[in-house]
Amino acid sequence: MTPPPPPPALQKNQLFVGTFVHSKSLNQLEYLHDASVAVDKSGRIVAIELQCRDQATAAETLCSKLGWDAAADVEVRVCKEGQFFFPGFIDTHIHAPQYPNAGIFGNSTLLDWLNKYTFPMEASLAALPRARRVYSQVVRRTLSHGTTAAAYYATIDVAATNLLADLCLAAGQRAFVGRVCMDRNAPDNYIDKGGPAAVLARTMETIDHMRTIDPEGDIVAPILTPRFAPACTPETMSRLGDVARDQDLRIQTHISENVGEIALVREQYPDSRDYASVYDMFGLLTKRTVLAHAVHLTDDEVALVAKRGAKVAHCPCSNSALTSGECPVRWLLDRDIDVGLGTDVSGGYAPSILEAARLASLVSRHLAMPYNSQGDAARAPSDVDKKRREEATLGVEEVLHLATRGGAKVLGLDHKVGGFEVGMEWDAQLVGLNMVADNGDDEGDDESNSNNGCGVIVADPHEGNVDVFGWETWDERIAKWLFNGDDRNTKMVWVKGRLVHQRPSS
Amino acid sequence: MTPPPPPPALQKNQLFVGTFVHSKSLNQLEYLHDASVAVDKSGRIVAIELQCRDQATAAETLCSKLGWDAAADVEVRVCKEGQFFFPGFIDTHIHAPQYPNAGIFGNSTLLDWLNKYTFPMEASLAALPRARRVYSQVVRRTLSHGTTAAAYYATIDVAATNLLADLCLAAGQRAFVGRVCMDRNAPDNYIDKGGPAAVLARTMETIDHMRTIDPEGDIVAPILTPRFAPACTPETMSRLGDVARDQDLRIQTHISENVGEIALVREQYPDSRDYASVYDMFGLLTKRTVLAHAVHLTDDEVALVAKRGAKVAHCPCSNSALTSGECPVRWLLDRDIDVGLGTDVSGGYAPSILEAARLASLVSRHLAMPYNSQGDAARAPSDVDKKRREEATLGVEEVLHLATRGGAKVLGLDHKVGGFEVGMEWDAQLVGLNMVADNGDDEGDDESNSNNGCGVIVADPHEGNVDVFGWETWDERIAKWLFNGDDRNTKMVWVKGRLVHQRPSS
Repeated sequence: MTPPPPPPALQKNQLFVGTFVHSKSLNQLEYLHDASVAVDKSGRIVAIELQCRDQATAAETLCSKLGWDAAADVEVRVCKEGQFFFPGFIDTHIHAPQYPNAGIFGNSTLLDWLNKYTFPMEASLAALPRARRVYSQVVRRTLSHGTTAAAYYATIDVAATNLLADLCLAAGQRAFVGRVCMDRNAPDNYIDKGGPAAVLARTMETIDHMRTIDPEGDIVAPILTPRFAPACTPETMSRLGDVARDQDLRIQTHISENVGEIALVREQYPDSRDYASVYDMFGLLTKRTVLAHAVHLTDDEVALVAKRGAKVAHCPCSNSALTSGECPVRWLLDRDIDVGLGTDVSGGYAPSILEAARLASLVSRHLAMPYNSQGDAARAPSDVDKKRREEATLGVEEVLHLATRGGAKVLGLDHKVGGFEVGMEWDAQLVGLNMVADNGDDEGDDESNSNNGCGVIVADPHEGNVDVFGWETWDERIAKWLFNGDDRNTKMVWVKGRLVHQRPSS
Repeated sequence: MTPPPPPPALQKNQLFVGTFVHSKSLNQLEYLHDASVAVDKSGRIVAIELQCRDQATAAETLCSKLGWDAAADVEVRVCKEGQFFFPGFIDTHIHAPQYPNAGIFGNSTLLDWLNKYTFPMEASLAALPRARRVYSQVVRRTLSHGTTAAAYYATIDVAATNLLADLCLAAGQRAFVGRVCMDRNAPDNYIDKGGPAAVLARTMETIDHMRTIDPEGDIVAPILTPRFAPACTPETMSRLGDVARDQDLRIQTHISENVGEIALVREQYPDSRDYASVYDMFGLLTKRTVLAHAVHLTDDEVALVAKRGAKVAHCPCSNSALTSGECPVRWLLDRDIDVGLGTDVSGGYAPSILEAARLASLVSRHLAMPYNSQGDAARAPSDVDKKRREEATLGVEEVLHLATRGGAKVLGLDHKVGGFEVGMEWDAQLVGLNMVADNGDDEGDDESNSNNGCGVIVADPHEGNVDVFGWETWDERIAKWLFNGDDRNTKMVWVKGRLVHQRPSS
């Protein structure tokens, strides 16, 4: 099967006019109102102009400055009331083949969940028509939730992994795609066979494919993906470490998600100081490594991760659903570890980074909670511990930082995406909230969302659940979006200047 | 202002045909496939027929049995593929006037949250146009999420409370509406003035209004609402207890949500054994009492609550958002306390009971989690405690039970609603999931949700986020709905046989 052709180049320069919201620092959002952002045909932000009250002013000022022909050469997009531009979300950890299992996990925890739900589903995607159906839906859904870049785990299958890369490229979603390496502790029908050399060879096949379809790695690029220490032989990990070093490749894997998993690693590597040291020993703990979960790291491990410059993908939906634990994000950030968010579909139930951000905030509150009284009263935490827990809480600004700038750092894209700055690329979403009509009783003057006279209220299919009454501050609007928003609020999505997703009423 | 007229009586008998899913017991869902449910003009289920493979069979069998004229007198609704009927959700705890603050809580906890966000918003709804705008939207939104019955807190304002009751009646949503009583520890501009007699008189005004607009209390009925112990004088609580006893009225209040609140009650009632005993002393702990939260109850309190037959509204979204704590639901259920779910808008950020059910499941997992390693390792839980925590996990079936049958018990409606049984009333929702097309690449044969040929994927506004590939079991479909469903999946909503909400493409 020939891969689909890459998306066509942009035909026009673009001007975006209205309100722009992005993360300025970990705990601060910046609001640029009445602003205009100019994006050239390469998808790059070439100018940002403030105080452009209207489209005419914006076009006039910026086009003359840039030497653009406003009439022929420029497409203009202006925010409507209740809308704003926000950087695209970055999903630092998602398993594309597990998508059909989203929400299906019963009362399992990591190790039984892998065997019961995950390995059978992944194995089944060796059938390419099935892989195409599933992967197409994953890319479509994540784009619809505003995910402009994702670090995907595929399966062990070469052809299906290449197909996922093709589909991301065709849809225009930035993707790091990794063939999963796993040559032990896996079922007979879903295990890398033939020894470490064969594992490497299959991995190189997928890397070569991605380098062929996207030579610059601008949209799609490979990432080495040893599943996790328990599933890879030492020899395979060692060879992957060598390749990573020789070719300066990105790496993604899992660490310290679940207490049973940690015990397993300790059994496998009795002489290793800890889990992080296992990866380090094989050259897999680098500044280009994305470690998913990091829920139960010890002090020593955090120090090592920080020293190596490795990154963390925090996956709160998954950690809650699989009863894994509560990742102490604040503690990692305080040690200068870069943290982004991951949906971890389908350990995580939702393909939405907005949901992950919401849960990141809630999970941080669980860390900060007073102990429950039954049984725990006798074990009141020490003052030091209490303080650490209370400081754990992550606010709206912080989780949205993790969802954008944080994720960009984790994937090594922070020079390109995550915020609106001249020189960066236009990976963005247009967000629209629902402005509640002023006639609370809706007396027949509005067809949508109204009582139709027979007493039946008919919903507006486009509006979503974020109700803005008009008196809210901008910080409050953003908080409302974080806590009640969904894909209906993501009206349009661009990657590198190209419109890749939109809703019918945008 | 004259209240709107009550909804018209049903003109036809109704037959519902297809798959019916409801809770059979705490941990079991029952699936009735190829079934038909007959609902008469009073909104009551009069017959359930199994093995009706099609509409014709259903109509024939049931109509002849019931003596209905199938041609003239019966409306038939048949499930489409991916659709099923489910009981309406029951919200046992929601503050209608706080709805505009949904999602807005910063890093506050209960007591500062009340002063900073809540009291000012509630006070502002003394302006009736504003109250009408807000309350209309609350009723519309909760109905759109499948909430067929709700226990509402209004404000201290009589006219606005009566307006909320009017709006519920007009929309056809079952509602217990309570004027909030609070005559101490509240701001000057938002406090019940004039002493206990005046508090009682204002409360009776709203009770009388509801008894006038809905004499049977079939759709709208009053509920006594002392805000919580810290905000009511002992004399007021005592009088409310008397009225509750004399008129056999329902009661709703808050208990043991937050450690600061508990300390405050202890200061106010140094001679009372505990928080629950304060309510009990005033006759407010009855089998018709709904206690919201119950996060930090002691053994003694749980025993007292169980003895009195009082009920608990579990509000997981709120308890997580306000960092209140993790309610040990399993422990309450094991002591034979009835538990339902509450959105607790706007301590809870979402007006959806499906979201509350999802969070109930996740919060139960936080209770069951291993302690986080940093700082906690030295304080490993005892075996007894470990077991209690591990048993805490609530599964899909259990949280959906709480959302329907559990809520019905909490509100004293379990003889009427919460499941599909002959003699019960038709409070139901038609749920539809998205059947993923078989052509994963969507090659142009489908206008919606497709790649439009220019590389832009256009979303289908109707489909929601629950993707069914076709190979899932019914249990798996329900799990997918629980974890990724939203109001888009609730296609139609009925209360007492009457269609009260629908989506344009249902």
